[in-house]
Amino acid sequence: MINVNEYFDGAVKSLAYTTADGKSTIGVIESGEYEFGTSTHETMVVIEGELIALLPGEQDWKTFTNGQSFEVPTNASFKVKTSGQSSYLCKYK
Amino acid sequence: MINVNEYFDGAVKSLAYTTADGKSTIGVIESGEYEFGTSTHETMVVIEGELIALLPGEQDWKTFTNGQSFEVPTNASFKVKTSGQSSYLCKYK
Repeated sequence: MINVNEYFDGAVKSLAYTTADGKSTIGVIESGEYEFGTSTHETMVVIEGELIALLPGEQDWKTFTNGQSFEVPTNASFKVKTSGQSSYLCKYK
Repeated sequence: MINVNEYFDGAVKSLAYTTADGKSTIGVIESGEYEFGTSTHETMVVIEGELIALLPGEQDWKTFTNGQSFEVPTNASFKVKTSGQSSYLCKYK
C-alpha cells in the first residue's frame, strides 16, 4: 500500500513507503513557506529544486540543493521555504 | 499544482512537478512486474530500493539500486520489476 499524504491544502504532497532501510516518504513542495513538526528523527534529502530551511535552534536559514541533506531531531519543528516546486526524500531514522 | 498519478490499480503512484530542469515525477512501485511506455525520452533514477529493468532492444534484465539510473528513448516500452517497495525519480528529457 502506497499512502498519499497531503498537507497545507495540497501544497505539499508525499508518498509513503518502506524499504529494507526503513520508512520513507518522497514528496513535492509548492512555492511558499511551511512549518513542519517531527515525531521521529528525520533526514531530508533534496531530490530536485531547492529547499531553504530554518532548523531547530538555528538563527539563519540555510539553502539545500540537489542531493544535499539536513537532519531534524525527534519532537522538533522546522521551517522550509522554496521559490518553485521542489522534491525531497524524507527518511524516518 | 502537484498532480498525483496512479497506475496498475494503485501499485504505482507518482507525483508530477516542474523545476528549472524540466518536468519530472517521483514515484513508488509496489512488488511486481510492470510494462511502461514512453511518449518522450525518460531518465529513471532509483531513489531507494531496487529496480530490475528490461530495456528496449535488450535481452537481459539489469539491476539498478540507490542513485543508479537508466534511460529510455521516446515511444518505447520497457519492463520493470521489484521485489519490495522502491522509489524513483523520472526526468522527462
